[in-house]
Amino acid sequence: MVKKSTKHPFKQDNTEIDAEDFLINCMTQVARLKDKEITTILDLQTIKVFKKGTLLLSEGQYATNCFFNCSGLVRKYYLKDGEERTTNFFMENEVISSPLSSTTGTPSNYYLECVEDTAMSIMTEEATSELFKMLPRLEALSKKEMEIQLAHYQELLASYIINNPEERYLNVLNTRPELVQRVPQYQLASYLGIKPESLSRIRKRIMQNTIAS
Amino acid sequence: MVKKSTKHPFKQDNTEIDAEDFLINCMTQVARLKDKEITTILDLQTIKVFKKGTLLLSEGQYATNCFFNCSGLVRKYYLKDGEERTTNFFMENEVISSPLSSTTGTPSNYYLECVEDTAMSIMTEEATSELFKMLPRLEALSKKEMEIQLAHYQELLASYIINNPEERYLNVLNTRPELVQRVPQYQLASYLGIKPESLSRIRKRIMQNTIAS
Repeated sequence: MVKKSTKHPFKQDNTEIDAEDFLINCMTQVARLKDKEITTILDLQTIKVFKKGTLLLSEGQYATNCFFNCSGLVRKYYLKDGEERTTNFFMENEVISSPLSSTTGTPSNYYLECVEDTAMSIMTEEATSELFKMLPRLEALSKKEMEIQLAHYQELLASYIINNPEERYLNVLNTRPELVQRVPQYQLASYLGIKPESLSRIRKRIMQNTIAS
Repeated sequence: MVKKSTKHPFKQDNTEIDAEDFLINCMTQVARLKDKEITTILDLQTIKVFKKGTLLLSEGQYATNCFFNCSGLVRKYYLKDGEERTTNFFMENEVISSPLSSTTGTPSNYYLECVEDTAMSIMTEEATSELFKMLPRLEALSKKEMEIQLAHYQELLASYIINNPEERYLNVLNTRPELVQRVPQYQLASYLGIKPESLSRIRKRIMQNTIAS
């Protein structure tokens, strides 16, 4: 039985308690960590709840935290000529790390914004190093996870080069159908690299083809 | 002083000897490895020279090797509706790994082709595991390298979503000017996600702007 974090004995907010339960469940069921590993992680991380619209990271800031999304939705965007250009979304059970800042020591060139009220498990760089010193097996697991992320980004990049916007939209519909329901259409259009009007046309065309077939 | 590999005592091909020298130089000057580490790597890897046009990997094959480019140029492409769609190039001093195959155990969905005669240092998955068992420090270094790669792909993906083809071309010109000279224009166009005619127009426009300014 996992010993829950004792850092917030007077914690009353249900969202935080739910988030900790979600985190424990992921570590037990998905990552299949041992009780001792889970307890150590719980003591080194902090759960925090952010309101919709909160910026977790801004351009020019140093990214030193690793986030794990327990509930909610986060958007990554760049500012280009004063316009927000969305390049990623992070849903529940997804890790948001900033390897560019941590490997080059340069400040962030993008923003992380909560699209919904979002509960995050946050671990600082120092806490992560401490964790890996205490439990080296977790460093090997984190390397495996990084390899999966690398494969994912290589495939995503290839699909952006190869596919047209309609194929990209269909791909999101197939692989992350929830996303299409949860994010505003102008953000989804930006993520697909097109204007909102083009996304409307694509959706209409797909709808007509579905009815016709 | 590094003890060179004794695996090929009768090796006569200069390209292979040059490639080994290049590899040793990278490990000494760039990665700053210790002599013992370099000697261990040299004994576990194999240098191989491939003719222009050789496929190092094909769709459907299992990718079990990690390549390090000592001289030459390799292209990654996907076949879509019978058409080759280039998604990356690997020049000297670059690693070509296939994390998708190794993490998911699925066969490759892309091709790796030598655009020029290419000399590679090749390490199998088994040799890599052996290396990390013998020298755990190198596993930590490889994790750092993977983090750099992850940051690189995240940035590349963002730049593909954000930038238009002309900006992408200017980006390649600024960051990898040699590439523009070394690869056929139709492959470069494919990599930028455009038709060769569009690339010609972009180049003409940039040329005219340079002359006018």
